[in-house]
Amino acid sequence: MALTRSTSARTISRLSLYRRLLLPWQTEGVERIYSHQLAQAAGVSAAQVRRDIMELGHSGTPNTGYEVRGLIADIAACIDAPEGQQVALVGVGNLGRAILSYFGSGRKRGLVIVAAFDVEPEKVDRVLLGCRCYRPERMSEVIGAEDISVGIIAVPAEAAQTAADQLTGAGVTGILNFAPVPIKVPPMVYVDHMDITVKLETVAYFARRRKG
Amino acid sequence: MALTRSTSARTISRLSLYRRLLLPWQTEGVERIYSHQLAQAAGVSAAQVRRDIMELGHSGTPNTGYEVRGLIADIAACIDAPEGQQVALVGVGNLGRAILSYFGSGRKRGLVIVAAFDVEPEKVDRVLLGCRCYRPERMSEVIGAEDISVGIIAVPAEAAQTAADQLTGAGVTGILNFAPVPIKVPPMVYVDHMDITVKLETVAYFARRRKG
Repeated sequence: MALTRSTSARTISRLSLYRRLLLPWQTEGVERIYSHQLAQAAGVSAAQVRRDIMELGHSGTPNTGYEVRGLIADIAACIDAPEGQQVALVGVGNLGRAILSYFGSGRKRGLVIVAAFDVEPEKVDRVLLGCRCYRPERMSEVIGAEDISVGIIAVPAEAAQTAADQLTGAGVTGILNFAPVPIKVPPMVYVDHMDITVKLETVAYFARRRKG
Repeated sequence: MALTRSTSARTISRLSLYRRLLLPWQTEGVERIYSHQLAQAAGVSAAQVRRDIMELGHSGTPNTGYEVRGLIADIAACIDAPEGQQVALVGVGNLGRAILSYFGSGRKRGLVIVAAFDVEPEKVDRVLLGCRCYRPERMSEVIGAEDISVGIIAVPAEAAQTAADQLTGAGVTGILNFAPVPIKVPPMVYVDHMDITVKLETVAYFARRRKG
């Protein structure tokens, strides 16, 4: 695999997207695809697709199309942990439940949420959507025992920094933050932000201009 | 205001983010901020902040810092609709409820979800989190009557394209898609995608590399 320490987050995100687009084609029995087809579905240029696949080290060539099954396998070998990877969810409100329904115990492999944390007593020590919910004070213990490396923050804005501190204190090295505030983490920790407000304001801006 | 038809989605997204970062400072009584402070909070370069604010047409200068209140007002004048803007939500499951709790009737102004749509009979013709829920067949009628220009898709993957067709058929010109599949829309319609899988896989990739 040709991916290196310098591979950017944008490249990894595009490879993840390509896989998601390729999987339904594989299910439909499509054997080969061309870079321009994948590019159109992903909303990037065909040259970008070819560069990304070259960086991935996939052996196919653009001229004859890429073999769908082999490309999916090469993407998986690069971006997935072979032994799977455990995720913790902090906050089991409506958003947390939605996230659990995607990444909870229904997943057989890959990224799986194996522990949830919430301050509300009626959620603690219960199994919610197949996932055990703990009080936040047990984060270090549970994250260590379950070998969790990724945390998802789905708490209200005012609780986000505390959740981030608890996750990183417990040894998590990557955080996806859904709370509408930035969080501070140690330099070793990778953070990304799902910013619903920013996305919706941007869509609304362009929707107005196209209404005209 | 200096924003033009050619202003990019990335610029609008950064301006939206700057405002979200500025609002708590305003509340705390901070009067002026420097580009490097805003840049650090937003995770971009100070030069980028200065370019964006220049493109916005804000009259402050980087040397003395920007006036927080005036900058917020100029961003609002550029990216908000003066008369507010109405949004429709399709899908009132866990994710839809989470979105409603952010952008529902609790908001006095700006972007407000004024109508929700769901196929489940027990949700239709009820008020959920302050928002009336209709059957999807009524989308054209309701979207026209409420002057809705933005749609949010929060349905399962297999229902996303139908939701997109119904929204655009009803006259919506911007869509934020939370379903984990790409949607096809007419060229006039602006679409953005909240791709939770792609974000989480990217965070997990870098979390592993930093675990050591």
